[in-house]
Amino acid sequence: MKSICGVEGVRAYGIKEGKFGLALIRASGTAAGVFTSNLVRAPPIVLMEKRIQSGYLDAVIVNSGCANAYTGKQGGSDAVRMGEIGGRAFGVDPENVGVASTGVIGRYLDLPRIEDQCNRIAPLIEQSSRAEILAAQAIMTTDLTEKHALVQGNGFSVGGITKGSGMIAPNMGTMLAFLYTDADIPASYLSSALRQSANRTFNRIVVDGDMSTNDIALCTATGLSGTADHDEFAQALEDCCRSLAIQIAMDGEGATKLLEVTITGAPSEEEAASVARTIVASPLVKTALYGEDPNWGRVIAAAGRAGVRFDPDAVDLRISDGSVSHPLVSDGKIVVDLATAKQAMHGKKVIFLLDLHAGPGSATAWGCDLTEKYVEINGRYTT
Amino acid sequence: MKSICGVEGVRAYGIKEGKFGLALIRASGTAAGVFTSNLVRAPPIVLMEKRIQSGYLDAVIVNSGCANAYTGKQGGSDAVRMGEIGGRAFGVDPENVGVASTGVIGRYLDLPRIEDQCNRIAPLIEQSSRAEILAAQAIMTTDLTEKHALVQGNGFSVGGITKGSGMIAPNMGTMLAFLYTDADIPASYLSSALRQSANRTFNRIVVDGDMSTNDIALCTATGLSGTADHDEFAQALEDCCRSLAIQIAMDGEGATKLLEVTITGAPSEEEAASVARTIVASPLVKTALYGEDPNWGRVIAAAGRAGVRFDPDAVDLRISDGSVSHPLVSDGKIVVDLATAKQAMHGKKVIFLLDLHAGPGSATAWGCDLTEKYVEINGRYTT
Repeated sequence: MKSICGVEGVRAYGIKEGKFGLALIRASGTAAGVFTSNLVRAPPIVLMEKRIQSGYLDAVIVNSGCANAYTGKQGGSDAVRMGEIGGRAFGVDPENVGVASTGVIGRYLDLPRIEDQCNRIAPLIEQSSRAEILAAQAIMTTDLTEKHALVQGNGFSVGGITKGSGMIAPNMGTMLAFLYTDADIPASYLSSALRQSANRTFNRIVVDGDMSTNDIALCTATGLSGTADHDEFAQALEDCCRSLAIQIAMDGEGATKLLEVTITGAPSEEEAASVARTIVASPLVKTALYGEDPNWGRVIAAAGRAGVRFDPDAVDLRISDGSVSHPLVSDGKIVVDLATAKQAMHGKKVIFLLDLHAGPGSATAWGCDLTEKYVEINGRYTT
Repeated sequence: MKSICGVEGVRAYGIKEGKFGLALIRASGTAAGVFTSNLVRAPPIVLMEKRIQSGYLDAVIVNSGCANAYTGKQGGSDAVRMGEIGGRAFGVDPENVGVASTGVIGRYLDLPRIEDQCNRIAPLIEQSSRAEILAAQAIMTTDLTEKHALVQGNGFSVGGITKGSGMIAPNMGTMLAFLYTDADIPASYLSSALRQSANRTFNRIVVDGDMSTNDIALCTATGLSGTADHDEFAQALEDCCRSLAIQIAMDGEGATKLLEVTITGAPSEEEAASVARTIVASPLVKTALYGEDPNWGRVIAAAGRAGVRFDPDAVDLRISDGSVSHPLVSDGKIVVDLATAKQAMHGKKVIFLLDLHAGPGSATAWGCDLTEKYVEINGRYTT
């Protein structure tokens, strides 16, 4: 087991037919959610933001291929109907069913297809590696790989699956992420821990700067392993979310390399995150990464437009491949050895470390390179 | 004459040798400037922001190939030296010489080369079509075409040249733009008119969302055609800047199509501009444009993350090729005919018209498509 089925009390299954997938996850417990901050929110988001206030879920039903976004009133009743289809299949109250959608915006759900897929796979749900893989695959759109994470805490587990590859941007709830723990966690604490974890992980990845209308992360705590230390749980949840977030960045549409940017010495954590996000989102940094071009000036230029005050002539900038780090700028002076810097960009992971010398705040953000493949994938998506 | 040499009192010349170009423009008069708002500002920007406070210029010297950015104290004295080289060539006070640079960040100026190029071309400056074309070409970097504009006012002219293709983003002073008028305009009014014109034109184009460290627009009024009505002059200046701004968007790195987005019904002009800029900057809108994929949902999704309040279920969205416009969303309802929408994307210019029905504010922004060529151009820039 490598994700949700490693958590006590969680069963799942999934099916993918062409562009159209459906995942079912059955797990009862306290529950919390975070959602996109886009003003244009898909009907399932509007529904779940209300429904999650009960702090309890029995199951989740998710479709891929159609986002049920910008579908107005009909989209709203379709989302409710989708929850009813899931509730009936499991014999649970539809009010306790989580609903999520991902895919093309501005199209209506094909409910007969969803009902047919649901009826076929509901009897098959189980707690197995195969089941969690099928569920993770069922929610993929342009993703190339399914995404799993499982963190073992002190007497409890936290596991999750997620999807996301394009339309990935900061300041959202998140993409689709479904997290489970067997720790016994009250709904109110679960909600604040999920919010903080999402803020430090999912909200710090950028693939293209486009914020989705359908971002959602749901976490359910089955409680089957008993109570857990709250701080330990919060840390495990954040570790689990970080693993999933980095998997999304690595699987960014068309990506060949992971970009990690750590800012230290910012006035605050929030401001450090803002600078880190601006750098990982920069098309010029992303294309330089792809071309293994040590054009570090683009990193400094991006930092300068993040809206955070610092003295550009007092910073330290280093580059690393994850093992050794090399100075590019030291105390505001250019000390780069271009050949060494280029060498540090050869691998699958490139890290920039920027110390602003302007305070105690630090933060890390993740992104990926911008390649011809991203253009190809997104130039012909609808048709 | 199609730009600066169509203005009384302006002579110019330019030279381009490989990546390294130099342009000289000789024109005395009241002068104003606007500059990048990036925190990391190149030394010539720092110099000019101070120097332009005199409200007077005799000449401008501009090099391409090296941005003289992030070069600290040496960069500062190099920028002063560059002004002295220009001043000596023309026999004018170096304090009245405008200095600008564009190219790679984090490299020092090659002053001997600049002095050599300056001494060779200073004797050649003239008021001719050939001269203004050579000057415009000399300041190009990844630009494919030189950019000119000339607006005839009532008894006066406003002309300008500009460069810019990548690292083009909103909220800057601008890229490099050199504007001239023979109207007699006081420096204080020239400054406010330039600020407003830049805000409505250069600040509304986005190629990649990366803000340059070297953006600058300088405007000099020779006064040789006598006084002009201030409102008429402000309008002519804005028309001239708009023409240049659209030329930059059309020549965006790797671009094949111009994107124009007009927002009406926003709470204010500023908020309309914010929505328009967010849409033209969206990588997903830009790739859909390239692929002629009528994925209008991405336009609505981008509008939703612009930070402006409106009711997504009450908007009108239309698409146009510049001649006929077709409805995509009407009063929040999807009315799109995908085949017709795709047809409207075949040309070199695609226009989206979005009415938010939330107030009296309107604004237009310009951008371009995102293509494999952008990735290719920027993946191997330094080396």
